[in-house]
Amino acid sequence: MQKPSLPSGTRDFGPKAFEQRRYVMGIMEKVFRLHGFQGIETPALENLSTLQGKYGDEGDQLLFKVLNSGDFLSKVKEEDKANIQSKELLPKISNRGLRYDLTVPLARFVVMNSNEIQFPFKRYQMQPVWRADRPQKGRYREFWQCDVDVVGTKSVVSEAELIDIYLEVFKVLDLGVIVKINHRGILDSFLSIAGNQENWNSFMQAIDKFDKIGLEGVNTELQNRGLSHMLEVWEAYSKLSEQQDITQLIEGLRNIPELQGEELELGILALTEVLELVTDKSSVMWDLRLARGLSYYTGCVFEVLPNDQRLDERFNIGSIGGGGRYDNLTGIFGMKDVAGVGVSFGLDRIMDTLAAIEKEEEVTNQNGILFCCMDKESLPLAVTLSRELRSFGLSAEIYPGAVKLKKQLDYANQRNKQWAVIIGESERESGELSVKNLVSGEQSKVVQSELRNHF
Amino acid sequence: MQKPSLPSGTRDFGPKAFEQRRYVMGIMEKVFRLHGFQGIETPALENLSTLQGKYGDEGDQLLFKVLNSGDFLSKVKEEDKANIQSKELLPKISNRGLRYDLTVPLARFVVMNSNEIQFPFKRYQMQPVWRADRPQKGRYREFWQCDVDVVGTKSVVSEAELIDIYLEVFKVLDLGVIVKINHRGILDSFLSIAGNQENWNSFMQAIDKFDKIGLEGVNTELQNRGLSHMLEVWEAYSKLSEQQDITQLIEGLRNIPELQGEELELGILALTEVLELVTDKSSVMWDLRLARGLSYYTGCVFEVLPNDQRLDERFNIGSIGGGGRYDNLTGIFGMKDVAGVGVSFGLDRIMDTLAAIEKEEEVTNQNGILFCCMDKESLPLAVTLSRELRSFGLSAEIYPGAVKLKKQLDYANQRNKQWAVIIGESERESGELSVKNLVSGEQSKVVQSELRNHF
Repeated sequence: MQKPSLPSGTRDFGPKAFEQRRYVMGIMEKVFRLHGFQGIETPALENLSTLQGKYGDEGDQLLFKVLNSGDFLSKVKEEDKANIQSKELLPKISNRGLRYDLTVPLARFVVMNSNEIQFPFKRYQMQPVWRADRPQKGRYREFWQCDVDVVGTKSVVSEAELIDIYLEVFKVLDLGVIVKINHRGILDSFLSIAGNQENWNSFMQAIDKFDKIGLEGVNTELQNRGLSHMLEVWEAYSKLSEQQDITQLIEGLRNIPELQGEELELGILALTEVLELVTDKSSVMWDLRLARGLSYYTGCVFEVLPNDQRLDERFNIGSIGGGGRYDNLTGIFGMKDVAGVGVSFGLDRIMDTLAAIEKEEEVTNQNGILFCCMDKESLPLAVTLSRELRSFGLSAEIYPGAVKLKKQLDYANQRNKQWAVIIGESERESGELSVKNLVSGEQSKVVQSELRNHF
Repeated sequence: MQKPSLPSGTRDFGPKAFEQRRYVMGIMEKVFRLHGFQGIETPALENLSTLQGKYGDEGDQLLFKVLNSGDFLSKVKEEDKANIQSKELLPKISNRGLRYDLTVPLARFVVMNSNEIQFPFKRYQMQPVWRADRPQKGRYREFWQCDVDVVGTKSVVSEAELIDIYLEVFKVLDLGVIVKINHRGILDSFLSIAGNQENWNSFMQAIDKFDKIGLEGVNTELQNRGLSHMLEVWEAYSKLSEQQDITQLIEGLRNIPELQGEELELGILALTEVLELVTDKSSVMWDLRLARGLSYYTGCVFEVLPNDQRLDERFNIGSIGGGGRYDNLTGIFGMKDVAGVGVSFGLDRIMDTLAAIEKEEEVTNQNGILFCCMDKESLPLAVTLSRELRSFGLSAEIYPGAVKLKKQLDYANQRNKQWAVIIGESERESGELSVKNLVSGEQSKVVQSELRNHF
């Protein structure tokens, strides 16, 4: 018989990993809720008509498609089968796919429930998504997104709140981060130098590689893309983005004549207002080069990166979160004028980053009580006593079956139990139980009625 | 543009439903953990080789299969395409499917991680599963199972613990239930009367319908299936199952000569021992006719049904949970001698049942604070104050943007906020904020530094 295996790019989460993820998601959820966000969940299965065409050509390729059930070829005529190709066959045999992100499902949800939703709609959603990407370090085919969005408002209060949420979550997780922000308006101001939309798109693709290939690399890219006429402004702009002082940065921007216009001023104003409202300004950086997901966003864009001294210099996982303002979220489903802004936490990369600084204190604490019975006759008493302890909120379980004490204590130690309560014939008769502290090794006799007070 | 829709048999969970499900799952998880169970999660995507052949022919039909990504037809030769049929094409274009239950993934997990797992392995798992079934009331294509299993022990302590867990969870949920139990040994004792395995299987299928078609119906079924020779014993057995007194029930079983044998005595012994250890015996019923999932189970079997006076008589949702002992869980993956016992909570049917008795108290509580700013200049103060309140664990948010007060208060009421803090120019200058109690309607002035103590 073949040994079972997992599909590439998917993972099991055993007890330890489950506990760590639960802890991190619990912190996120707590922060989201304190800020008044409400949870929703959407199905893993969506109609392909909902998903297709929303993530670009590459995204369509990466969608997991689900075969129609039963005799899925029944809609294909016999005469059409010969020489049929994947692209032609696909729409005949698959109507559904797996959720690719949480933003398109949010847009669908808002459109389908617009009568019941109170706007501004502040929702969080923490669920897995699926992408048929090539698996590699930090990239999975089934991975978790934790999204927070405010739908139905254009106020910058929401941008500032989302940045605060990022910083609050990572503060509790004790992970140093930097939130980079930029504004679509600033980048749009390059349109007139680019000459046309196509050039501008090409320019965006080039500068988006800055983190990987550096300034030299981007310059070469621009030349190869026939954008030499943009080099001069780009270099001035790029140099300016190292300016830490916001006032001087804005002054510098206003000193590049080619960029002037309404869009630039809109961007400057929005970012200034956002920064003013952010609580911990020292962890936020205005990064002129940040060019995230541009087909999608219309205002502020965000990205979060680990920025922690305990991380090895070679540790490079990329961003652990990102998002931005979209002023036409539901337009893809025919509902106009719904503005919103949202950010995503990349749970899996966050877990990988926390693992890299070995934050595992939570797991090693010993707690809980194991009842060890020396004979079958002691089991009913153990059931009664463990139930009583649980009713006071203590974790208490009985080793199933009266096996050798060593085996039972081994289990207690492996499961990090703090206490073992040993019951045999003499304990039943005397009413005094043997209680062993598994941390110190001390053993004592405790009267049955005093058991609860002992812990 | 087409209005978006959801695939049949799937659902969104908006804020209200999300909150109710979270509450119920939170109670389950708390009980599981107090009993020392550890959480795990497995991927939604499994290899088809893991899933197929585990749920019978009907199960294989109901598996959702996922298309291989990219050019999925590339493995099919051009000359083979003509006249190809679904069954023949399927293995060439799909290697993966969606999780069908949580038990086969558990078996796979145990086999793949047998070196790291400490046995007995007490695990809980709460995740969605998918079945391409015909959707109807109480039956969905994407639905949640909440499973608790003890793997690696034959002790009846585990059966008793799982029954206690059922009863503890439903007690906290304030839903009356009855746990039915039976034992495979009792049913196996019919084998000699049946004559052969095939007849016995047919007998099981017939009596499994008892809940739907009653005694008359089962009798007719038995005749139609050529099992008239079993009628007499079946009728005596069926009558006996109405006996409430366990001692008399056992005596009655021992008085049916055709059933005597080792299997019967094994079943009687196990059930007696289980019942002895169960805490609340009044909610447990030994139901001789319970014949649940027999291809699978080898010992005790369980089923939970709602049993609550507040439910309308016509409310009939079937079982809201079930399970049993399997003494060869991992055998399907080539690992022998791993015994276990487990039960499942059917979350969706539990939610439907709770909704039928209208238990919605949790949702109507008013809590949380909304900051309403009368002008943009008040936003930074609101940010500072709301952050301080959150640091004390209070849910506090700012209405995004200084829009008309009425609109802001409407939002506060719709979101069931308890308090509104109103800040405008005069409040900023005097340092006294207007605080409105949205439950009583009272409004008062509160000094900024006293705000936290006011809530």
